[in-house]
Amino acid sequence: MLKVVIIGSGNVAHHLITVFEQSNSVQLVQAYARNAASLSNLLPASKITTNFNTILPADVYIISVTDDAIAEVAALLPFTNQLVVHTSGSVGLQQLNAKNRRGVFYPLQTFSKNKAVDFKQIPLCLESELEADYAILETLAKAVSDNVYAINSKQRQSLHVAAVFVNNFVNDLYRIGYDICNENNVPFDILRPLIHETANKVQVLQPKEAQTGPAKRNDVRTMEKHLAFLTDEKKKIIYTLLSQSIQNNNE
Amino acid sequence: MLKVVIIGSGNVAHHLITVFEQSNSVQLVQAYARNAASLSNLLPASKITTNFNTILPADVYIISVTDDAIAEVAALLPFTNQLVVHTSGSVGLQQLNAKNRRGVFYPLQTFSKNKAVDFKQIPLCLESELEADYAILETLAKAVSDNVYAINSKQRQSLHVAAVFVNNFVNDLYRIGYDICNENNVPFDILRPLIHETANKVQVLQPKEAQTGPAKRNDVRTMEKHLAFLTDEKKKIIYTLLSQSIQNNNE
Repeated sequence: MLKVVIIGSGNVAHHLITVFEQSNSVQLVQAYARNAASLSNLLPASKITTNFNTILPADVYIISVTDDAIAEVAALLPFTNQLVVHTSGSVGLQQLNAKNRRGVFYPLQTFSKNKAVDFKQIPLCLESELEADYAILETLAKAVSDNVYAINSKQRQSLHVAAVFVNNFVNDLYRIGYDICNENNVPFDILRPLIHETANKVQVLQPKEAQTGPAKRNDVRTMEKHLAFLTDEKKKIIYTLLSQSIQNNNE
Repeated sequence: MLKVVIIGSGNVAHHLITVFEQSNSVQLVQAYARNAASLSNLLPASKITTNFNTILPADVYIISVTDDAIAEVAALLPFTNQLVVHTSGSVGLQQLNAKNRRGVFYPLQTFSKNKAVDFKQIPLCLESELEADYAILETLAKAVSDNVYAINSKQRQSLHVAAVFVNNFVNDLYRIGYDICNENNVPFDILRPLIHETANKVQVLQPKEAQTGPAKRNDVRTMEKHLAFLTDEKKKIIYTLLSQSIQNNNE
């Protein structure tokens, strides 16, 4: 059975600890946190350490801390030639200290601490320097997810950028929709099924096939009406730019 | 039992015909199409007419045609003082001919002809000139949907604009995510669970509460890395504009 140590206590660390604790084919031997209390709701005290020098032997050490702290934490580890991975979408494998065998174990999902996720559905993007280590990471990943991919650092960076568009920026458009509703005394609830269905459509279609609306139809009159309706200059600019983006991608 | 006639054969007409045919509390007496063949997979020939002069008596006549054709079709109806509604988000009630009692029956959803929808979940936005007619529309709407709202023309216009942001523009961001994946030999499948979860989050949270990412954290280094990664000028502009939009809405 693969033995794992998690280093970190953020959102991703929380979800990894939870899913490994539930797994029958992975043994979470320990988790490290600067502050033991931050993990006390997930693990017994015996499984938590706050001291790098007391980290137990394991097959994989998963560093799940903020991007800026990864290199520092990797350097502080008191052992060498072990398999050490991070969980970041935007940090290269090379940021890990070369004294250990390096890899990446990147779950591409948006995590909230208080919202349970079906981990089986989460894509895990794996990378390693050594081929033999990839096999270990793959065994670990497949124990908890049905979606496991070999993704190199360049590809992972592209995914991270793409995720900003389909997650962060999409959510800002939801926020604009919310604001427009709010300004007009319309409940945001009316938009929620549409938001849901829009995301559902591209689960089976390519986004281009799913595109509809005035920009797609080149319905200039409706677009002009909408621009006249929007009083906020920033919303007008976003409306114009994204309408052009849709039109530029029409066949 | 309320009697309904549908005038039109597009996506929305198809879905309305299907849901009214399935309802036990609404009687779809007839549908009008310019070309009977366009409805022949949904209705027996006896229920289809291609002639305005043979439209049967009903409690509600629903005009479900393209926005530009609504006024013309409403004028062609050979009767007066009946309840006539359209299904458009962007057309005022006043566009309907004043010889009949006017209203709106606007389902706010994105319809594809080949994809079944759970009509019960679809918000129906109702408006009428006469209070008594509102009661008729409400009875009709509640027979097929659990989400019925009184929405005046100004509010409906705001919803139509908001829907462009949360549906059309969101889908264009999905398309950009798809392109970035494609350019880097990464399967778009990796982003699909994230897209799904992003939409799920705002089913319970307000968009502002759900916002995450480098712009939200004011993580300038990551944003600079992303902009350096994006070679396409149009994607860079959208990245910059939407990052600013998120930052402007930070408390």
